[in-house]
Amino acid sequence: MSFTAPVRDLLFNIEHLSGWPGISSLPQHDGLDLSDISAVLEEFGRFCAEEIAPLNAPGDHAASRIENGKVILPEGFAKAYAQFVEMGWQGLQHPEAHGGQGLPRVVGAAATEILNAANMSFALCPLLTDGAIEALLTAGSEAQKSIYLAPLVSGRWTGTMNLTEPQAGSDLALVRSRAEPADDGSYRITGTKIFITYGEHDMAENTVHLVLARTPGALEGVKGISLFVVPKYMVQADGTLGPRNAVRCVSVEHKLGVKASPTAVLEYEGATGFLIGDENRGLDYMFVMMNAARYAVGLQGIAIAERAYQQALAYARDRVQSRPVDGSSRGAVTIINHPDVRRLLLRMRALTEAGRAMAAATAGWQELAHQGDAPEAAALAEFMVPLVKGFCTEMGVEVASMGVQVHGGMGFIEETGAAQHYRDARILPIYEGTTAIQANDLLGRKTLRDGGATARRLAAMIAETEAELAKASPFAQAVGTRLAAARGAFEATVDRLCSIGRSDPNAAFGGSVPYLMLAGNLIAGWQLARSLLVAEAALDRGEDTAFMAAKIATARFYADHILPETETQRLRITEGAESLLAGVL
Amino acid sequence: MSFTAPVRDLLFNIEHLSGWPGISSLPQHDGLDLSDISAVLEEFGRFCAEEIAPLNAPGDHAASRIENGKVILPEGFAKAYAQFVEMGWQGLQHPEAHGGQGLPRVVGAAATEILNAANMSFALCPLLTDGAIEALLTAGSEAQKSIYLAPLVSGRWTGTMNLTEPQAGSDLALVRSRAEPADDGSYRITGTKIFITYGEHDMAENTVHLVLARTPGALEGVKGISLFVVPKYMVQADGTLGPRNAVRCVSVEHKLGVKASPTAVLEYEGATGFLIGDENRGLDYMFVMMNAARYAVGLQGIAIAERAYQQALAYARDRVQSRPVDGSSRGAVTIINHPDVRRLLLRMRALTEAGRAMAAATAGWQELAHQGDAPEAAALAEFMVPLVKGFCTEMGVEVASMGVQVHGGMGFIEETGAAQHYRDARILPIYEGTTAIQANDLLGRKTLRDGGATARRLAAMIAETEAELAKASPFAQAVGTRLAAARGAFEATVDRLCSIGRSDPNAAFGGSVPYLMLAGNLIAGWQLARSLLVAEAALDRGEDTAFMAAKIATARFYADHILPETETQRLRITEGAESLLAGVL
Repeated sequence: MSFTAPVRDLLFNIEHLSGWPGISSLPQHDGLDLSDISAVLEEFGRFCAEEIAPLNAPGDHAASRIENGKVILPEGFAKAYAQFVEMGWQGLQHPEAHGGQGLPRVVGAAATEILNAANMSFALCPLLTDGAIEALLTAGSEAQKSIYLAPLVSGRWTGTMNLTEPQAGSDLALVRSRAEPADDGSYRITGTKIFITYGEHDMAENTVHLVLARTPGALEGVKGISLFVVPKYMVQADGTLGPRNAVRCVSVEHKLGVKASPTAVLEYEGATGFLIGDENRGLDYMFVMMNAARYAVGLQGIAIAERAYQQALAYARDRVQSRPVDGSSRGAVTIINHPDVRRLLLRMRALTEAGRAMAAATAGWQELAHQGDAPEAAALAEFMVPLVKGFCTEMGVEVASMGVQVHGGMGFIEETGAAQHYRDARILPIYEGTTAIQANDLLGRKTLRDGGATARRLAAMIAETEAELAKASPFAQAVGTRLAAARGAFEATVDRLCSIGRSDPNAAFGGSVPYLMLAGNLIAGWQLARSLLVAEAALDRGEDTAFMAAKIATARFYADHILPETETQRLRITEGAESLLAGVL
Repeated sequence: MSFTAPVRDLLFNIEHLSGWPGISSLPQHDGLDLSDISAVLEEFGRFCAEEIAPLNAPGDHAASRIENGKVILPEGFAKAYAQFVEMGWQGLQHPEAHGGQGLPRVVGAAATEILNAANMSFALCPLLTDGAIEALLTAGSEAQKSIYLAPLVSGRWTGTMNLTEPQAGSDLALVRSRAEPADDGSYRITGTKIFITYGEHDMAENTVHLVLARTPGALEGVKGISLFVVPKYMVQADGTLGPRNAVRCVSVEHKLGVKASPTAVLEYEGATGFLIGDENRGLDYMFVMMNAARYAVGLQGIAIAERAYQQALAYARDRVQSRPVDGSSRGAVTIINHPDVRRLLLRMRALTEAGRAMAAATAGWQELAHQGDAPEAAALAEFMVPLVKGFCTEMGVEVASMGVQVHGGMGFIEETGAAQHYRDARILPIYEGTTAIQANDLLGRKTLRDGGATARRLAAMIAETEAELAKASPFAQAVGTRLAAARGAFEATVDRLCSIGRSDPNAAFGGSVPYLMLAGNLIAGWQLARSLLVAEAALDRGEDTAFMAAKIATARFYADHILPETETQRLRITEGAESLLAGVL
């Protein structure tokens, strides 16, 4: 099944939703214009479609495996990764000072989506490297930056995140791995880490493990966890690689999906590690990495949805079955003519585009926040991370499932490929923090902590868009009415949760996932409503009419069919806590 | 992962929801009482838990495969099937005249759910045999009945349904297989049939294929299709088996789930077949079989949901992770204490019990309808088939997905077992007619054809329950309020669809799946509301208090968290057609 990168839609979002004028006027992006970005994304899209996407189904079939302690990736992965490195794609959004291209995050996000849509298993490797770069930039010493960043940014070395242990998944307070100080200032790391994505492979010269562990006498709980960098091969003073470190892969998981991506169990047996930043602040640093990774996993949700949509659309245009219900043909027609197949495909498309639009707006806030001295952008960016992660991954699972459904019986046959997306998607609402963990973050840290201020700021921004919609076409007005209703549900929910958050935490947190899904639905729909305004204006000018007409149609579908779900979520939160807590299991 | 048959809940439904007084007063069930049924289901539950359920995970891992034209089932399947036959379970609900036990359908349905929860791949074989028995009872000649029924009812022979061809899936008008009359009154069947469940295996002495094909000169479309019985081994005059017929398995599909169940491609190469009933009426007869099979697939949805729920519940009671949000413990607690895990589990449980309750009520109407001269029961039973099939299978997929989520990262590891349910469940909204096909049946044949009369009859029955709820406890009154709102949404939908069904079929059928999901949600919730009334009365009498209290809690949760979804579905139908039809793909 071929894949085409959705570059047109990604560019529309960068131009119109991400706050591009503000981003392109930042000093470090001086002189960058949209045509440059278009050229970059077109080229990357072509590379991914031609070199990476064809490895997706064979990679799933072959799967990564371990033989005599050596992890074997599917055929073609190492070669494709070498091309990826050669072309410099790993450095797209990373600082020029470390060899990157220094492009804005909105561009990096677009590229991440494309790569993941082409091949999620492959994309996981660069994705984890991005996270390691982010953590080292934040908390690494100058010496550490100079040792590790250039090879990571180039892609010659890859990165991993080592948080989870058998007894410590969502709950990092339970981390037990130990770090004993050695005389030379380094540490000896001992413990078992599980679920380590690309924890062992030989596509790259070296792997840089970032590892959470406890120093002797550290406090229990999350306040006693430190972060260490543990290279697979020791790095010598001249930058060349020395002996292998005492960390080894003892097994590779047999998973439901993303089978080509090796998920390793790593044994640290007195491995040499180096403290990053201050002792006991590991979780703070890891959160920097995790925020980047969580946002990226949200992009994976959009990516798998896009891939599933493209595949289902192609099948629906090709498969001939049954006469149309309106009697317009006496013979069987392609199934895209059947109303329920339309409904499925439009829902897939609307959820995908809305998620993408929300992610683009978020990347814009992240870019501004990253420059510092932009407290509003920073608060919005922080608020959005659990939403992009939670909403877009839940949506990705749903869209992949609908993709199977469009295929009918063929969808259940593995060779068709739709089933792989359904399997691959299922990890997304789980790793880098389950949807419930995201929802707790959204409710606890991002909503209750500021008394709902950021949430209400977003509601006010949405109301501004409603005012613009009210002045536009009848279609825009209808979308505005739906948006206002959904915003009302959101505000009622925020009020309710803020009023009970401290006094009745079980009731409040029992509504946390409905709150996340409500907020995600609303904010994604808001971005589509903004898109509709842009598209109506463009249509008036006769620009890119097919694309703009489709964008308007998608925004309308979303407003009528998806935004109203917010009211059910509100009911669950404002009126459903009693029956939730009284439930018998 | 161990499995316990939910016998208590199944018996509750038979006693209180299925119209048991009417069923047990039918002449053929004279003298049958609930203690007999309880004994049967307890014994069957034990057998399934001990002998069938343990084969589920190994069967998935091994999968059925073909070697040199021979289909090899996973180890243990043949032995377990022999026990199943030996104990006479295949005949549970089939006529005593053919060697069955003649128990009511409400009991057969309960047993089917148990068997499928234990092992869906295994259960598919008896399920298809049930369908073949049903078709032969309806349309077979006396001679055919005497040849085939006793071995099928005993389980010594198994049955298959051969409808699908590569170009003919949902659209049976496109069936091309040919049936040439021979001089001896038999036919020579030629063609390729795909997706044939248990189309080839050697657990049974013989396989009875029921095959759709066209006789020479038959009309095009569905009016030219006839039904044939094609035995794998010819049956001789004395009932013993003769030579092998000219039908062979050319491949077995590589599927997402139900991997132990062999899904065969069968080549008919001039195989000897015998016409069932009248020529060109094949589809009518097949619909009898399909109705039974569709209802049974709905039971599979409930079954996989039950299995996924049991597994997730056990994990949530065992896994320790994170402190509670209410600060009630300073250490980490089992995850069942976290509000969102409760929410997931309660939703899983509520959907499962509601689907089961709806299926029990439906089986009661089927039983009465089957006796003839019960036009209201017949109309209700027909209305319910697409709902049980469509709603319970969509629900099964959702519940299985939530089951993975409860497990966190472990859910994505195949050895845990939660992923198998997620994979197995995915076929259910597809085979025996996709959800869209069910929805078209519900809207076209079951709603528009009688001008909405049956739908409104159901609404009136629901209103009667609301009146009872209004006279009961405050909890019951609250459930009644939710039920009334959902019924209002249903009635508005029925009115709308009936008014545009003929004039604007694309708009009407674009709302067909939302209508199915709305109606299924409502009717399942209605049955839980009836259960609540029964349980409150039982609690007042001090009967079975733990079970009854849980039933009340589940009904309340369903009313607050699930019934309100009907309003969103209504909006999609009554206000969403324009944006659906204007959508650009």
